[in-house]
Amino acid sequence: MLITNITEMDKKILLGHGSGGKLTHNLIENLFVRHFHNPVLANQTDSALLSLDSAHVAFTTDSFVVDPLFFPGGNIGKLAIAGTVNDLAVSGAKPLYLSASFIIEEGFDFNDLEKIVQSMAEEAKKAGVQIVTGDTKVVNKGKCDKVFITTTGLGTLSSQLKHISTAKKVKTGDKIIINGTIGDHGMAVLAAREFLNLKSAITSDCACLNHLIDKAVNISDQIHFMRDATRGGVATVLTELAEITGMGIEIDEQHIPVNENVRGMCELLGYDPLYVANEGKVIIVVASEHTEQVLKAIKSDRLGSNSSVIGEIVDDHPGRAWIKTTIGGKRILDMLAGEQLPRIC
Amino acid sequence: MLITNITEMDKKILLGHGSGGKLTHNLIENLFVRHFHNPVLANQTDSALLSLDSAHVAFTTDSFVVDPLFFPGGNIGKLAIAGTVNDLAVSGAKPLYLSASFIIEEGFDFNDLEKIVQSMAEEAKKAGVQIVTGDTKVVNKGKCDKVFITTTGLGTLSSQLKHISTAKKVKTGDKIIINGTIGDHGMAVLAAREFLNLKSAITSDCACLNHLIDKAVNISDQIHFMRDATRGGVATVLTELAEITGMGIEIDEQHIPVNENVRGMCELLGYDPLYVANEGKVIIVVASEHTEQVLKAIKSDRLGSNSSVIGEIVDDHPGRAWIKTTIGGKRILDMLAGEQLPRIC
Repeated sequence: MLITNITEMDKKILLGHGSGGKLTHNLIENLFVRHFHNPVLANQTDSALLSLDSAHVAFTTDSFVVDPLFFPGGNIGKLAIAGTVNDLAVSGAKPLYLSASFIIEEGFDFNDLEKIVQSMAEEAKKAGVQIVTGDTKVVNKGKCDKVFITTTGLGTLSSQLKHISTAKKVKTGDKIIINGTIGDHGMAVLAAREFLNLKSAITSDCACLNHLIDKAVNISDQIHFMRDATRGGVATVLTELAEITGMGIEIDEQHIPVNENVRGMCELLGYDPLYVANEGKVIIVVASEHTEQVLKAIKSDRLGSNSSVIGEIVDDHPGRAWIKTTIGGKRILDMLAGEQLPRIC
Repeated sequence: MLITNITEMDKKILLGHGSGGKLTHNLIENLFVRHFHNPVLANQTDSALLSLDSAHVAFTTDSFVVDPLFFPGGNIGKLAIAGTVNDLAVSGAKPLYLSASFIIEEGFDFNDLEKIVQSMAEEAKKAGVQIVTGDTKVVNKGKCDKVFITTTGLGTLSSQLKHISTAKKVKTGDKIIINGTIGDHGMAVLAAREFLNLKSAITSDCACLNHLIDKAVNISDQIHFMRDATRGGVATVLTELAEITGMGIEIDEQHIPVNENVRGMCELLGYDPLYVANEGKVIIVVASEHTEQVLKAIKSDRLGSNSSVIGEIVDDHPGRAWIKTTIGGKRILDMLAGEQLPRIC
């Protein structure tokens, strides 16, 4: 059972890398601790011990199973950081710490794993968060698809922002902002998965939004709701918001930014961009009189240059979101039924 | 795409259950929120918002990929709660909140998922923890093996217990206690997986140890180290402890409790119980003069009735753990090389 040649061994992930024994230790030391390096993780205790500056926290988790692992604009690692950081940030929390748990298929290429881990480290650094604890399981070949990553995030929350995720302050006349084009992530992953030979590539918008969100929150205390529009797209967020608040929503299709390539691909394949996943887009609901200053603030962020006011909260049709189409009609938005694009995140 | 017959649909997990749309919402409402019911989860915000009574926290994560999902003494759900609760408890933390993320294979039986979720709810209740946030991803048939669960735990830590996971107070003469028989979990899962027709079944020891650990911690401030002996078994914990502290460890084989069935199965199949996984066993290192009272305290817990002092910290062979065998010899313990039993947790 003794394996002496570490270099040979490390080219592929073996079942032993998930054993909890020597190979697991090597993997942790030579890969995870090396790239994610921080004093908490380096302790390698059963739990990461943390001292927060507030006892009010936000706590969130997501599993990532995207296929393919690598796509224009990102990979599963970058996605696993951005997705969880964004869930904290849209709750009004300051993202601080992440855990990362890997389920890896036996025989998975070590170099690919390292690329993924490097992306995670880079993205975490950009977002200002630390990966402080983790786990690795290896399953036999064919029992999972390459690698799945689950990240869980912990952030502190100021009591002034507690209303944001519950949408309790949303009121008639509030404006709805999005920080840029929609559908890029979903179409980028689909194109990469199906090897579609597109004239110009579509790039995923996958990114951590916490700095952009900071700018909005710092400039206005009148932000009433935020949510990132991931699986289910913008339509699902708006439908949920209408349901939670019991208020009406009206969106103007012509104000929703969509990249031409995304629009073309959606038309070709029969997708509605409103339902296509994003990984770097946030819906912000703000008091009408603060709209311009919030828009200006997020436009100053490189992830918000195409920000746009796409609609508002209305008295009509309570609990329902409607869209004014570019050809002048109006239709109701509903939640996604069934699955549009599996394994998009 | 509209699915109207919820009853039919819910018998098998569909890709749409992971879409983030209508089916996901149904699954969350009718399964997770119903069984895990608590006010935080019911809010269904992007992040769970929590108010802790201390800003010193422990944070830990584990993915569970056990095969088979159901085994004598537990299932993947019970395991996913106990494993993470125990990682918090052995760090000296009070386990409070868990996240649970599911990766489910398309076509997975809804009833099996419900059994698993029920077990999670029961085990969480016993441990006094709440499952406050989660995620569900569904992958195409054949792309994962039935279901994988990742739980992440959050607990508060009193500053007097910060030394426990770092082992900084461990000193020569400290006694090493285990709360009962070893190897039960690993052998129970293996027997269930291989359909071994054993005369008397072996039952996994899978359980939350936080209440037992509370008893030990409440009775003595002289607990110097704790760790649960999961993957890699008791031998791996002791080897790690010797490495971290740079001290010597001596264990007496005849004092290590092993169930007769487990011993027999290990002999038959060539396993060493010291390396076989447990899911309800903790190694406690305590100052010599406090040993008896700690032993008495944990023996009063139903999960500690077979507790035993198995060895001590010594000056000899620094950084190494040795075992006195029942036939009178001595051998060094090493970390597990390669994989003994894949997918044991």
